[in-house]
Amino acid sequence: MTDSHEVQDTVTPWVVQAGKASGIDYEKLIDQFGSFKIDPQLIERFEKVTGKKAHHFLRRGIFFSHREMNHILDLYEQKKPFYLYTGRGPSSEAMHMGHLVPFIFTKWLQDTFDVPLVIQVTDDEKFLFRDFTLQEMERITYENVKDIISLGFDVDKTFIFTDFTYMGQCSDFYKLIVQIQKHVTFNQIKGIFGMTESDNIGQIAFPAVQAAPSFSSAFPHIFGEKSNLPCLIPCAIDQDPYFRMTRDVAPKLKLHKPALLHSIFFPALQGATSKMSASDPNSSIFLSDTSDRIAEKITKYAFSGGRETEREHREKGGNCDIDVSYQYLKFFMDDDEKLEQIRQDYTSGKLLTSGIKKELIVVLQKIVGDIQERRKTVTDTMAQNFMTPRKLKFTY
Amino acid sequence: MTDSHEVQDTVTPWVVQAGKASGIDYEKLIDQFGSFKIDPQLIERFEKVTGKKAHHFLRRGIFFSHREMNHILDLYEQKKPFYLYTGRGPSSEAMHMGHLVPFIFTKWLQDTFDVPLVIQVTDDEKFLFRDFTLQEMERITYENVKDIISLGFDVDKTFIFTDFTYMGQCSDFYKLIVQIQKHVTFNQIKGIFGMTESDNIGQIAFPAVQAAPSFSSAFPHIFGEKSNLPCLIPCAIDQDPYFRMTRDVAPKLKLHKPALLHSIFFPALQGATSKMSASDPNSSIFLSDTSDRIAEKITKYAFSGGRETEREHREKGGNCDIDVSYQYLKFFMDDDEKLEQIRQDYTSGKLLTSGIKKELIVVLQKIVGDIQERRKTVTDTMAQNFMTPRKLKFTY
Repeated sequence: MTDSHEVQDTVTPWVVQAGKASGIDYEKLIDQFGSFKIDPQLIERFEKVTGKKAHHFLRRGIFFSHREMNHILDLYEQKKPFYLYTGRGPSSEAMHMGHLVPFIFTKWLQDTFDVPLVIQVTDDEKFLFRDFTLQEMERITYENVKDIISLGFDVDKTFIFTDFTYMGQCSDFYKLIVQIQKHVTFNQIKGIFGMTESDNIGQIAFPAVQAAPSFSSAFPHIFGEKSNLPCLIPCAIDQDPYFRMTRDVAPKLKLHKPALLHSIFFPALQGATSKMSASDPNSSIFLSDTSDRIAEKITKYAFSGGRETEREHREKGGNCDIDVSYQYLKFFMDDDEKLEQIRQDYTSGKLLTSGIKKELIVVLQKIVGDIQERRKTVTDTMAQNFMTPRKLKFTY
Repeated sequence: MTDSHEVQDTVTPWVVQAGKASGIDYEKLIDQFGSFKIDPQLIERFEKVTGKKAHHFLRRGIFFSHREMNHILDLYEQKKPFYLYTGRGPSSEAMHMGHLVPFIFTKWLQDTFDVPLVIQVTDDEKFLFRDFTLQEMERITYENVKDIISLGFDVDKTFIFTDFTYMGQCSDFYKLIVQIQKHVTFNQIKGIFGMTESDNIGQIAFPAVQAAPSFSSAFPHIFGEKSNLPCLIPCAIDQDPYFRMTRDVAPKLKLHKPALLHSIFFPALQGATSKMSASDPNSSIFLSDTSDRIAEKITKYAFSGGRETEREHREKGGNCDIDVSYQYLKFFMDDDEKLEQIRQDYTSGKLLTSGIKKELIVVLQKIVGDIQERRKTVTDTMAQNFMTPRKLKFTY
């Protein structure tokens, strides 16, 4: 039973608001959304079936919730086909570290399962929900596509598309969207997303556009006649409303419900209870930040779980639970042993705030630097190749 | 001032309901919709500017209302470009005589003005509002396109498109739709179309799809860089809500408001107060009806304004105002003098019901027969040609 005096967390694709100062209660969210916790048994099965150590995002609870992941593992075990779908709402020119989380994980899933991947860039959504012109939207979207490519996706196995462009390339995509729209009322959209009568009709209809790639019939060039292949969607938990809706509609279209893997939110530099914002460059690390800028931002802004004075810190130790540098290391330091050592040293007071920040700076400079290096090699032709509707290197 | 006890006519694209048994009050509708009456001065100017006798649809008040037709005549006088846009909601396999009205008039306007014409077939709308499958929709739509072509449109000057197909051929079309959607709220849709929270989100968003062809940027292959050419839309008055909405949005997109010519409704065989229904084959004459069937339907079902007995009729005369055969002749008999003679003879009682029906049968058999002859020559290749996005024989 929920205490009636308790304020619930609000988590929609547009509003993430914690009911309490301690931040989002992810266990409660699982209850509220009706998803399932990724528990040690599931991770163990994952490792058994794939023969591969689980990604640290799984081991550390960064991807913490799922829907029907067991079914996807069944399919993999039975060598039956499925595909991956993730996306990006291009709201800012440069992507930040939080935006990378689903992509890094998706790439790992693709490497692990060796299945086709479709990446939707929702330029239409951002145009409808933000104050961008079509021209600005086009530029931002293209920069985002190049950022995504820089994460190392394989062009032979990955189709990246923007809604504005793909809609004009594939009638089946629009047909599918309209089929989905036919099964969703405004009342349902109100209930799921909290939209109101004053919202514009594009916003109200958009959820069907994000739902559509969950069904393989949206991509005839990839899947041919296989219009009903199961789909696995790794995404941040705030995107779940779209896919709850999608899963409700699926049986009405006689299509598979998509499976999901949900991640927690990436905290702002100022701490988990503060809001990361693309319009505040100091609220996160961006892919466009130089090494110096990364060092400066972490040093200056990363919320510290350390003590007031060095002496007090050495005596009582720091608090990893609220220390942003430690939280970021949990996302981006692959080495479990080293991370555990850092946790122990910081908690005991042996490692100072300056020390843990230095660890993080090195990790982020390396990750961002590598992406920036690859980004330089991403040509217009490469982007065009990723975005051309085509057969991928899979046979159906 | 409207009498508060008076029941207003309801006229939306989906519901046409007369408040009184005498049928729709078109004068009131003009007030209600805020359009303008097509008066003798406008018709005179039309004839002067075009050097051509006005079509009998204009002379007889069948097209009775307009928005900014004077502006279109200005443009024509100044040899400035504009284009025509009309459409069809493919709700039944065979089109009936009422469906022909806007097309016959549009063809005449195109012959008169020599401008490009775009014809939208809203398969997505009918899919969203009716109980059709995508496959049924596709078949019906294609049959309708062939019917439209049979009316004699010039392939060099006419682009016919279905929404499902064209959406997948032209990104600019979708971009324009989303731009329109951004400027229309659900509250507005509720106010204009009477939609409710229980309507599906495709229905709610659809009006932007019908609005989009009012702007030349929807057709880059025809108009190239001319993304803001004025547009004239001939349609039945029930389609006006779409274009009231379009005209509200236009200034926000810095685009021309479309001009309009509105027709009255085509009566059912059973009379003006009865509903013509594609599902009741006896409620109208269809393009698929044989000559015998036409004769049979008129004889059997055409509501008569004649008297109970021949004797009474000869004595007191018939009533043309409610006689469906006379109403149909007003739509389809080109010859003013002959029509006037029929009116006089029927009113005086000289012409019997069987006589006026015979006149109508001959007229309709000829029109339908001619279309059926042309329909036989409409090949798949021809249909494909009309439906291919391409440059028309106009230079911009």
